Amino acid sequence: MKAKIYISYKEGILDPQGKTVSHALDAIGIKKIKSVRMGKYIEMEFNGISKDKASEITDESCRKLLANPNTETYSFEIVEE
Amino acid sequence: MKAKIYISYKEGILDPQGKTVSHALDAIGIKKIKSVRMGKYIEMEFNGISKDKASEITDESCRKLLANPNTETYSFEIVEE
Repeated sequence: MKAKIYISYKEGILDPQGKTVSHALDAIGIKKIKSVRMGKYIEMEFNGISKDKASEITDESCRKLLANPNTETYSFEIVEE
Repeated sequence: MKAKIYISYKEGILDPQGKTVSHALDAIGIKKIKSVRMGKYIEMEFNGISKDKASEITDESCRKLLANPNTETYSFEIVEE
């Protein structure tokens, strides 16, 4: 069982790293990009638990540690493999 | 048109940040997690182009700038909105 977690900045929060990447892409000739927002992608593997339990642990991890509730939002999906 | 890009370390590449997060979760009482791997999640918005063109630009951006071909792999999806 595995969780795929996506964390990104809330709307309205400045993202200087994204702006820098956007300019860098423009500078190397890659055009047509309106904006770039940088976030985090986290993969979490579990030891023999149910999908519901995995979902619960993932949500708790995001709330208590991974995402900053003031500036970031998170979403995740649980995949079996 | 928007691209969602996921960049993660290749198998076998050490991820000290992931290890640290894994220990931190354990320390605050969140158990049953086998491993944590940190990666990047990037959202890219485009100015009025086709889905095929967006896909091409995203792939080029990953190859030329966003992902380190030596240590990272990337995948992406193009969503219309």
